[in-house]
Amino acid sequence: MSGTLSKTAILSGLRKAHAIRETQKASAPENETPVTKAAAKAFDFGTLPAFEHMRLQRAAADMLKINPPFFRSIEAVSESHVMIEGKDCINFASYDYLGLNKSPELIEAVCEGVKTWGGSVSASRLVGGERPFHGALERNLADCYGVEDAIVFVSGHATNVTGISTLTGPGDLVLIDSLIHNSVAEGVRLSGASHLTFPHNDYAWIDRKLSQSRDDYGQVLIVIEGLYSMDGDVPDLAKFVEVKTRHNAWLMVDEAHSFGVMGKTGRGISEAQNIDPTSVEIWMGTLSKALCSCGGFIAGSTELVEYLRYKAAGFIYSVGLPASQSLAANAALKLMLAEPDRVDTLRENGALFLEQAKLSGLDTGPSLGFAVTPIIVGDSLKTVFIADKLLERGINAMPIIFPAVPEKMARLRFFLTASHSKQDIQYAVETTKELVDIAAGTNLLEGLRSKS
Amino acid sequence: MSGTLSKTAILSGLRKAHAIRETQKASAPENETPVTKAAAKAFDFGTLPAFEHMRLQRAAADMLKINPPFFRSIEAVSESHVMIEGKDCINFASYDYLGLNKSPELIEAVCEGVKTWGGSVSASRLVGGERPFHGALERNLADCYGVEDAIVFVSGHATNVTGISTLTGPGDLVLIDSLIHNSVAEGVRLSGASHLTFPHNDYAWIDRKLSQSRDDYGQVLIVIEGLYSMDGDVPDLAKFVEVKTRHNAWLMVDEAHSFGVMGKTGRGISEAQNIDPTSVEIWMGTLSKALCSCGGFIAGSTELVEYLRYKAAGFIYSVGLPASQSLAANAALKLMLAEPDRVDTLRENGALFLEQAKLSGLDTGPSLGFAVTPIIVGDSLKTVFIADKLLERGINAMPIIFPAVPEKMARLRFFLTASHSKQDIQYAVETTKELVDIAAGTNLLEGLRSKS
Repeated sequence: MSGTLSKTAILSGLRKAHAIRETQKASAPENETPVTKAAAKAFDFGTLPAFEHMRLQRAAADMLKINPPFFRSIEAVSESHVMIEGKDCINFASYDYLGLNKSPELIEAVCEGVKTWGGSVSASRLVGGERPFHGALERNLADCYGVEDAIVFVSGHATNVTGISTLTGPGDLVLIDSLIHNSVAEGVRLSGASHLTFPHNDYAWIDRKLSQSRDDYGQVLIVIEGLYSMDGDVPDLAKFVEVKTRHNAWLMVDEAHSFGVMGKTGRGISEAQNIDPTSVEIWMGTLSKALCSCGGFIAGSTELVEYLRYKAAGFIYSVGLPASQSLAANAALKLMLAEPDRVDTLRENGALFLEQAKLSGLDTGPSLGFAVTPIIVGDSLKTVFIADKLLERGINAMPIIFPAVPEKMARLRFFLTASHSKQDIQYAVETTKELVDIAAGTNLLEGLRSKS
Repeated sequence: MSGTLSKTAILSGLRKAHAIRETQKASAPENETPVTKAAAKAFDFGTLPAFEHMRLQRAAADMLKINPPFFRSIEAVSESHVMIEGKDCINFASYDYLGLNKSPELIEAVCEGVKTWGGSVSASRLVGGERPFHGALERNLADCYGVEDAIVFVSGHATNVTGISTLTGPGDLVLIDSLIHNSVAEGVRLSGASHLTFPHNDYAWIDRKLSQSRDDYGQVLIVIEGLYSMDGDVPDLAKFVEVKTRHNAWLMVDEAHSFGVMGKTGRGISEAQNIDPTSVEIWMGTLSKALCSCGGFIAGSTELVEYLRYKAAGFIYSVGLPASQSLAANAALKLMLAEPDRVDTLRENGALFLEQAKLSGLDTGPSLGFAVTPIIVGDSLKTVFIADKLLERGINAMPIIFPAVPEKMARLRFFLTASHSKQDIQYAVETTKELVDIAAGTNLLEGLRSKS
């Protein structure tokens, strides 16, 4: 390995590879006679230009002697701890916000469910896959929200993709927050609607935009999140409701990270900010986070849900949610509502982490101390270095680096849950502070050169 | 209810409503002052033009006094039977092809899985959601296929959407069979690639097309299915491999309905047609059918899978497959390979249904008698009527009607499984024949007028 490859060269290589957009032009076949069996070899995907980026990332990690932070296998899970390479770690990379993932009620519900119903519902719900537990979960989600109905999907990501692309199309306009989740952006792309990204949380920007051009479009959909998972901040929902109502637009709130987290009883941002839930057209959430299952949901009016039940391609042409996942989510939802002290504990833990981090002088960005708080380091390489050292010290927290965030905004992301102890949090903040200071005073590539 | 609404009027209404594409133009706001809380009411989705279509469909069913065939709740499941409204029915609307959905091994694997791992993996696999059971399932799927690697997704539908849109983009060309599944079409739309639909199974059409214009595109992807689920027929895989190789294109085979079904040991169309599996770039399948779980997979070369692991948005930004679903699929896969007599029985049942239906003079279209055979009735209303009467006689088979198939091609679709007895099949064919004959001699709307 060459010790002369500079940090600048690596980053420049990463940027260059990332920017490559041209696809390889295939050469024309010279021979049209049927090929032999040996010639029928498949294409080598390793020759795609995007592979260059992946190879450079790996080379950078190898040079720094850092274990790749991604796809680390978790060997065991218990409450706030996980086992990684035989080592017990406090886990800050889990969105089991209320600590319900291994609750006895959930385990029993899943076991009974699979015994009664099997592993699959073996059909789309439209044509033979409908089971009573689907309606029960949807009823409970709608009741929890205080809206008329709900519909569940087998994937949270696909809920946004199919939901948004079903509700909007060419001639419509979708306005998305600049920090919106990828699943929303994918849904907008699939819809064929016009779309604009508005500055983070900036309802006044939307107001100005729609004052100028509302009439240029059919439907207008505004998509925001209840709690932004990269920064841990939230929108002012009343303002968005006011603006969307005045301009005859629809508002969709993705509560992936706010459901179970915000509000006195975990009902999300509408409870936290005292907003009538029926004033928002489309509530979206996932089943995989506070609800400890897999899938997503949309809740709203009877007509919205009926529309999606008959029109959403990712619902009609998809298998129904299996019993294990439906009943896991239903059990977690019941526990969330029956045991509001879990939400209290989560709130205390989130606030404690933020407070301690701020006291330590760590940069927590705009985080409000709900379930997600970033520690902004700035430099991507240093962030990965710190994450690696944290793991050595028994703390699992994920680095979020360029290009997921801008180059100078790389961060460690801490997910807080109701399972963390005060000691877990204190230890994590102290250790992170120590490592951030060490990294600040270290020229990582300098150290590397002297070794090589 | 009016007795004067004719069949022509209903169908014309359905077509008209179906064709409506214009969205309602919202009127400009007259008052820009902040609205009162009462005014912040959400949009009424019932005013969308597409609702007209749904209302007409319901009115048509009501007029004919037919229970809506869709979203019928299944109250209990056991082998080839289901309970619907308290009535025991033979189920021909399940793709539990090998009858493994409630096998003791699968149930035990799911129960142990949820006890050990909880209901969710609580993160994307990239950043904290990776578990050993993911790699184990992927290894077993790849080995079963005889290819290098595999990757699993939480939704089969989303596997195609994200897989295709990750591998192709603007400047590329995707060629899809005219009977391809919706999930493939959605993936192509999302990709932004150029696309063309080729006549069903017509590899010669592709050959001609690419001879003329291969050079106009970057990558070319051809997508076919191993077993088409509307007609029960299959492609000539060797021909597709030959054509794609000669034109330097990629071939993707969706084995949703052929995996576990075709081939001596259920390994799918490559086994059935004796094709080297490594000569196909992209194998795709679902976990919800023969594998009795929920999700999808893509199998192929190491580089293909690595590319998707780092680039597919619906994988990176999605939670990992939960233990219950991973272990259910793994258990079913092991049973499939350990008990090849299940595949034999399925093959016999499929062949028996086709043979008996043909002997009875029923129209089975191009079905080859694998796990899916349609009985083509032609008229949509008669098809729904027959499905309703079949249910009264204890047979659950779904109608596929306009606009899912062309108006004169409406059909009943029978899924065969290894759990069906010879008697189940005989009874289903005899009863269907009887009802098709009754429907042929009945003017449904005439009867309706005399009643009203």
